[in-house]
Amino acid sequence: MENVNKMKPKSPLYLALIHWPVYNQRGEVVGTSITPFDLHDIARSSKTFGITKYFVVCPVESQRKLASRIMDHWLTGVGAEMNVTRKEAFECVTLVPQLEDACLTIQGDLGKSPRLVATSAKPGPNRISFPELRAELEESDAPHLLMFGTGWGMTEDILSRADRFLEPIAGQGDGSYNHLPVRAAVAIILDRLLS
Amino acid sequence: MENVNKMKPKSPLYLALIHWPVYNQRGEVVGTSITPFDLHDIARSSKTFGITKYFVVCPVESQRKLASRIMDHWLTGVGAEMNVTRKEAFECVTLVPQLEDACLTIQGDLGKSPRLVATSAKPGPNRISFPELRAELEESDAPHLLMFGTGWGMTEDILSRADRFLEPIAGQGDGSYNHLPVRAAVAIILDRLLS
Repeated sequence: MENVNKMKPKSPLYLALIHWPVYNQRGEVVGTSITPFDLHDIARSSKTFGITKYFVVCPVESQRKLASRIMDHWLTGVGAEMNVTRKEAFECVTLVPQLEDACLTIQGDLGKSPRLVATSAKPGPNRISFPELRAELEESDAPHLLMFGTGWGMTEDILSRADRFLEPIAGQGDGSYNHLPVRAAVAIILDRLLS
Repeated sequence: MENVNKMKPKSPLYLALIHWPVYNQRGEVVGTSITPFDLHDIARSSKTFGITKYFVVCPVESQRKLASRIMDHWLTGVGAEMNVTRKEAFECVTLVPQLEDACLTIQGDLGKSPRLVATSAKPGPNRISFPELRAELEESDAPHLLMFGTGWGMTEDILSRADRFLEPIAGQGDGSYNHLPVRAAVAIILDRLLS
């Protein structure tokens, strides 16, 4: 059953978790902290769905160093022996200060800039549907980078740089409860696009 | 787009996260700890997809007390004012010692025992497919309880009590990397069954 509709994108697919610039609950522009469970959960979902690289985008060097230390435990330390599947998951994680650095890394790997795809829990105009994006990934020669916000979502400024804006995931009932954890949103979006 | 295929189950749908009895990495039967992020993430996914109750099944009283304290912060304390959507999510969480207690709660609420649906990352015989279970939820008068394991999965003993066994989520490539976080598996399964 499961394998019938499985989709492999024509070009590499990347993912970025944006820690800055994002909004806080009061609509102020802030940076958020890297959390261990965003690292673990999104790395595992990325590995499951064949994401080429999962970029953790955070301009604060001490935050990136802490994330690097956590991952080193699983990549090279006793953790790597204890749980090889966690090592495999973390191998796709790349820590970068800015979105530009993610784009430059992809440019360096492939000689092509990625098409940026924004995601958001909020509805709005000019959204691409899941089937439309799925078809684009299946046919396009361009690498794509899926952008996910932390906090109360990416700022208008960074969203305006996206080439595509994916429709939100609607829940049950009137769909007004749109507060999925970003980790759950990543899992559902990868499943909808790639399974 | 999003609302076209949305499905509402005919009868209430419940979810249980099983902390005992589960296997550890060496195949021994153990109990696992309740983690704050299982509470938060699965409560938010449950609320999004209209789950009636999310049962956290753990026989250790001190663990349930700790979970209760964490949730009280968001349900009644300063957290409830700070973040009302977290309050709304935690309102569906019920802490119980055993799977039987979840079944008895449902029996008390509805006068009917639930049909137990096991989930697992591992393939095996006699699995129900996602479309089949979706159709069953749409048509059946019976409440259903989706069971999710922690650790390295539910024991054979508890799995044998299930009335249905859902097929696993297969990833990309040969699908051999089947190490999604339970939080991600819950999100994907609810989306596949209910969106």
